[in-house]
Amino acid sequence: MREVFHQSLEDVQGRLVEIAELVTVAIDKATRAFGTSDVALAEEVIEADAVIDEKAIELDELAIEILARQQPVARDLRIVVSALRMSASLERMGDIAEHIAQLTRMRFPERAIPKGLKSTFLKMGELDVEVARQLTELLRTQDESLIDAVRNADDSLDDLHLSVFEKVLSDSWQGEAAATVDATLASRYHERFADHAVSVAKKVLYLSTGDWTTTTDTITVVAPEQ
Amino acid sequence: MREVFHQSLEDVQGRLVEIAELVTVAIDKATRAFGTSDVALAEEVIEADAVIDEKAIELDELAIEILARQQPVARDLRIVVSALRMSASLERMGDIAEHIAQLTRMRFPERAIPKGLKSTFLKMGELDVEVARQLTELLRTQDESLIDAVRNADDSLDDLHLSVFEKVLSDSWQGEAAATVDATLASRYHERFADHAVSVAKKVLYLSTGDWTTTTDTITVVAPEQ
Repeated sequence: MREVFHQSLEDVQGRLVEIAELVTVAIDKATRAFGTSDVALAEEVIEADAVIDEKAIELDELAIEILARQQPVARDLRIVVSALRMSASLERMGDIAEHIAQLTRMRFPERAIPKGLKSTFLKMGELDVEVARQLTELLRTQDESLIDAVRNADDSLDDLHLSVFEKVLSDSWQGEAAATVDATLASRYHERFADHAVSVAKKVLYLSTGDWTTTTDTITVVAPEQ
Repeated sequence: MREVFHQSLEDVQGRLVEIAELVTVAIDKATRAFGTSDVALAEEVIEADAVIDEKAIELDELAIEILARQQPVARDLRIVVSALRMSASLERMGDIAEHIAQLTRMRFPERAIPKGLKSTFLKMGELDVEVARQLTELLRTQDESLIDAVRNADDSLDDLHLSVFEKVLSDSWQGEAAATVDATLASRYHERFADHAVSVAKKVLYLSTGDWTTTTDTITVVAPEQ
């Protein structure tokens, strides 16, 4: 039974990694599409999101099947419950990639990226892809040093998110209301990826420390100051 | 054992209702604080969010204990897993109320609500409270007619969210960039409550239909058109 359980857990882990890989591709394509107004690339992201949703449902079904058939207790039980939560966070990251792709498509043939913020959004996009890669690697290897890497990238993204507000609220900002709306929404989306990544990373940490309460999602309080 | 399980489920349900009630209070206070620039009321929401987080953790612990001790299968198992997901959505609704309260506090003594959008945000706030009340009642009574009520309110909130963008992007909009940022963020927060409420309501529906796949969160594609 124990061996069957461990095979099942490996299956769960493999699927989490697979979903994280798909999410990484979605984030990479969405942020590049946004940066370059590539509507074809944006369409790819929008179409592919259904695959991520499906994989997440399959993983949930597998986790529920494991709970029903193998009736794990203690730490084993928490691993399976964690997997359910990680899948929800990964699925949400896919949704946010889709949001960015939709914003890109809606603005086409205009540029979605507001003037004066190109380099900031390119940096945010690169960091988002890095975070997604680190998260995938963390899920694959359980190498805890990657948890700090994910947290650091989240901090950098929070800083960049604030810098978008600083720019938009500065005297030098010449964007119309539409550009301000786009900057606000796009920056929020770019920043949210990392919040979800930290949330998943914390659950991996729980599995080694056993401290469940730290796995609750903390909110990132990032809002524009005037 | 069966009876013990049913008592446990009643306990889970009671706690979901309790959290939903706290969330309703948070949404009521946050949206009123936002509408009237009441910073004391905003502070109350910010302080009280820790209680919602704690209650959600306690509910999760209870659900995990039920899984471990009573090893439910089939529909019973799915009820417990659903409770874990509902608690995550309710907790997130509390976070969003806190975001609105923070925005109110950050703008104080200025008005957080952008000029020209007061009646729209008041309507959104009222609908958010209504949605939270309907959801609480749904969790308490399992009265499925409330699911449609929640969905209808979500549709109305999506329309109001779009109307905020229409206003901000119209020629009549005279707000500075800061007002545009506030309108964008606040509208997104006001609209998100209902998305989470629909997500919880769908899980209640699943419990009667058994159709698990419909419980996956769909994303609301509401973005500004130019």
